[in-house]
Amino acid sequence: MSQPSYVIGHQQPDTDTIISAVAYARLKQAQGEDAAPARAGAINPETQFVLDRWEVEKPALLEDAAGERLALVDHNEHSQTVSGAREAEITDIVDHHRIGDVETSSPIFFRNEPVGSTATILTRLYDEADVEIDAQTAGLLLSGLLSDTVVLRSPTTTDTDRTVAERLADIADVDYETYGKELLQQKSKLGEKEPREMVLGDFKEFEFGSHDVGIGQIETVEPDTVLEQREAVLEAMDEVVAEREYAVLVLLVTDLLEEESTALVAGDHAETVEAGLDVTLTDREAFLPGVMSRKKQVVPPLEDAFQ
Amino acid sequence: MSQPSYVIGHQQPDTDTIISAVAYARLKQAQGEDAAPARAGAINPETQFVLDRWEVEKPALLEDAAGERLALVDHNEHSQTVSGAREAEITDIVDHHRIGDVETSSPIFFRNEPVGSTATILTRLYDEADVEIDAQTAGLLLSGLLSDTVVLRSPTTTDTDRTVAERLADIADVDYETYGKELLQQKSKLGEKEPREMVLGDFKEFEFGSHDVGIGQIETVEPDTVLEQREAVLEAMDEVVAEREYAVLVLLVTDLLEEESTALVAGDHAETVEAGLDVTLTDREAFLPGVMSRKKQVVPPLEDAFQ
Repeated sequence: MSQPSYVIGHQQPDTDTIISAVAYARLKQAQGEDAAPARAGAINPETQFVLDRWEVEKPALLEDAAGERLALVDHNEHSQTVSGAREAEITDIVDHHRIGDVETSSPIFFRNEPVGSTATILTRLYDEADVEIDAQTAGLLLSGLLSDTVVLRSPTTTDTDRTVAERLADIADVDYETYGKELLQQKSKLGEKEPREMVLGDFKEFEFGSHDVGIGQIETVEPDTVLEQREAVLEAMDEVVAEREYAVLVLLVTDLLEEESTALVAGDHAETVEAGLDVTLTDREAFLPGVMSRKKQVVPPLEDAFQ
Repeated sequence: MSQPSYVIGHQQPDTDTIISAVAYARLKQAQGEDAAPARAGAINPETQFVLDRWEVEKPALLEDAAGERLALVDHNEHSQTVSGAREAEITDIVDHHRIGDVETSSPIFFRNEPVGSTATILTRLYDEADVEIDAQTAGLLLSGLLSDTVVLRSPTTTDTDRTVAERLADIADVDYETYGKELLQQKSKLGEKEPREMVLGDFKEFEFGSHDVGIGQIETVEPDTVLEQREAVLEAMDEVVAEREYAVLVLLVTDLLEEESTALVAGDHAETVEAGLDVTLTDREAFLPGVMSRKKQVVPPLEDAFQ
């Protein structure tokens, strides 16, 4: 009998990461494996809404993964893994991001595809394993897909995502446009947040060459709620840069309805951001028309600029 | 129109690497992509036999991949990639080895599975894409599968490999045991080789922590042909260690019929090899009962021992 494994997503978990942990653990269980979902951080309000809506318990918090067997979902770089992952045995990876720095000593199952959500890939894995997707699991997978693709509006969205979304909505018996709007409203509940929470709420850390770079994103239908507090937000960003010694911190304030972003920038390498994103910062701010995806439209040019 | 891409396997190409480049390029072409197979080194006698048997031209030699678009097959670490790959754009990876150090700035298609050959995974990709496998392509894929799994005898062989082999043999209209024996005889044509050719014929280089380690393998039905020349072979190994500054070089002489190996060792870190493989070297040699797979039985314990 082999050691049980945890299925776990990235730090600062979002909806796609949490539901992927649940759905992939269920698939493994259906295939006779001893697997449990876990999480590497607090549940955000949108994800809590999803778990309540589909009556699913939140995965247990894993504080230290050293010595464990891990299946990674929705990420594949160590700057985003749960604490202790470098001392864990990685058994599988299912993801839709760039290829990062996770290495293994033995061959493993690694499935990365350039689609809009990890939920999309997991739906295919259920099909390939000939395991039925029940209504509850379909609801979870649909939530991850709609959240990550901003209801199929993000430029990361592919035809596969659209086909899968329709099928999942059918099984879960919801209208995905209506349900998607409910989800978007959850993302937007920003009013009560502290500036530091806004910066770190959906945050990823990268190593670009020798530089540590943080990129946060606030996806909202009300960008003014954030931008009206820009001085306080910039101050919070400066604090994070000082604490974590980032070369630069970029905060994307993404307007989900207009499909555009405003970038706020902190740290000493603002010029590299200007070069990478081909913009001029005015008062530490730049407007990015058409930019909705951190992964596809911001990470690659910034990485190139830093190297 | 996007730039055409090369599908290419590892340096010191073996049969699975060459036929995977051909078969994956054909799959991409069938899906409307502009892709051509390529190779990163000389064709070995077994692979030449396979290409002649199925009347397929050898892929073109790619000497410098800088600036090219590459789909990597049968490897995913830079110590094994074609020259210039670090300056190329990696668009896909299909492999069955450990996860190595290839990173990308954008999301890509990465399919790694712990099965016996890359050919096995490619067969599934044809099925998933609903592209028919013709008799010639089936013959190539079967050759890669049988070569890498030593006709389904290697411990890396899975049930999936067995099922796929039967199906490919059916399409290619050959008896896979008979055809497999012909392949094994090609592997064994060692008599005329120089010691240095024996060492480097099927050779892989690894970075284990801060150490460069080379691991060669001679798969043969006549191990005595090699071991009778052990002094000359060890001398060739010492030369390679000095030239390439390896911490250690291990040469596995694998007896395909008895399913066992003899390891010869050169370099300053022989003790680490003893610890990793749990053996005692006598006169720079150790017997490894049951060991047939470099990837599964030698690389993981050596990597652990060096870290």
